[in-house]
Amino acid sequence: MYYPEPISKLIDSFTKLPGIGPKTAVRLAFFVLDMNEDDVLDFAKSLVNAKRELTHCSTCGHITDQDPCPICQDKERDGSVICVVQDPKDVIAMEKMKDFTGKYHVLHGAISPMDGIGPEDINVASLINRLKDEEVKELILATNPNIEGEATAMYISKLVKPAGIKTTRIAHGLPVGGDLEYADEVTLSKALEGRREL
Amino acid sequence: MYYPEPISKLIDSFTKLPGIGPKTAVRLAFFVLDMNEDDVLDFAKSLVNAKRELTHCSTCGHITDQDPCPICQDKERDGSVICVVQDPKDVIAMEKMKDFTGKYHVLHGAISPMDGIGPEDINVASLINRLKDEEVKELILATNPNIEGEATAMYISKLVKPAGIKTTRIAHGLPVGGDLEYADEVTLSKALEGRREL
Repeated sequence: MYYPEPISKLIDSFTKLPGIGPKTAVRLAFFVLDMNEDDVLDFAKSLVNAKRELTHCSTCGHITDQDPCPICQDKERDGSVICVVQDPKDVIAMEKMKDFTGKYHVLHGAISPMDGIGPEDINVASLINRLKDEEVKELILATNPNIEGEATAMYISKLVKPAGIKTTRIAHGLPVGGDLEYADEVTLSKALEGRREL
Repeated sequence: MYYPEPISKLIDSFTKLPGIGPKTAVRLAFFVLDMNEDDVLDFAKSLVNAKRELTHCSTCGHITDQDPCPICQDKERDGSVICVVQDPKDVIAMEKMKDFTGKYHVLHGAISPMDGIGPEDINVASLINRLKDEEVKELILATNPNIEGEATAMYISKLVKPAGIKTTRIAHGLPVGGDLEYADEVTLSKALEGRREL
């Protein structure tokens, strides 16, 4: 008990966050002591509000403070293309790109038998329901390019193909600005496999 | 506006903390969304409490939730030796060492003419008052071993010497576990200068 109790509690709270070790937690806690009170209150309020006001969109599963989310509500977006992603952060990454005008579906995970996560543990059932209700022509499977993501993409693809819905998978290849010399073998092999005529 | 408002506010709050860039802030904010609500409330409460309940001890200037602080109140500690440090974190570092049984005085800064910080901007006046009221025999000047810390130590030393109070400066030298080969010249020179007979 070297610290007065209020600050040791704050240090504990910071330590619970990912990537924040004991030393950083102490630094952050002392920084909070030097912040002005309004900023600290704002911080506390934003924590509680983020937790309380945000929910998952009942249609697509993206995080939102209104249900359905603004993307699902947006009538200018193309409802016939749904991009399936693992995580709300992936929706945001796609939106930042500004190239995609369809809608999304967030799975909140990927199939991973090693971790005991099966298809019923991720948001697949609601995707199937959407396919019944909405007029969807194409599912873009944008799960992560790793074993779990690939397995999930394969699973969904097999599931919806009988219904005549086109499924596509985002391309694998070299990242733009990357260096061929440093690319790993699997990526390079996928880049070669996915080559296109110019 | 890619993020729903509550989460973008939380991201902003995290970004204000030192050493937390935009990407880490996003990661932390999404982590908070996945925390259980009680933990988030605890976190928010600990932020506000740390800011509201902590004050500076009116005697030594250390952060505390009671005034005077437990160290100043502790009658088993030797009041004749005061260790002068720059920062409350330094008190905690000293306390962790467990070797020092005297009391402390926290300056909350160091003299730094380049930054426009003079002796009147740090907690020196209250130190002088303590020297009048309390029976102090020795001041251990444990300010940081840099230009500002040295200047502050010199200043305080000159100020209190006429009153017949012994002032000492913590030793400079090689850190334990350090490597002579990699020590900088100034440290090495100080280590040589401060050599002691075995």
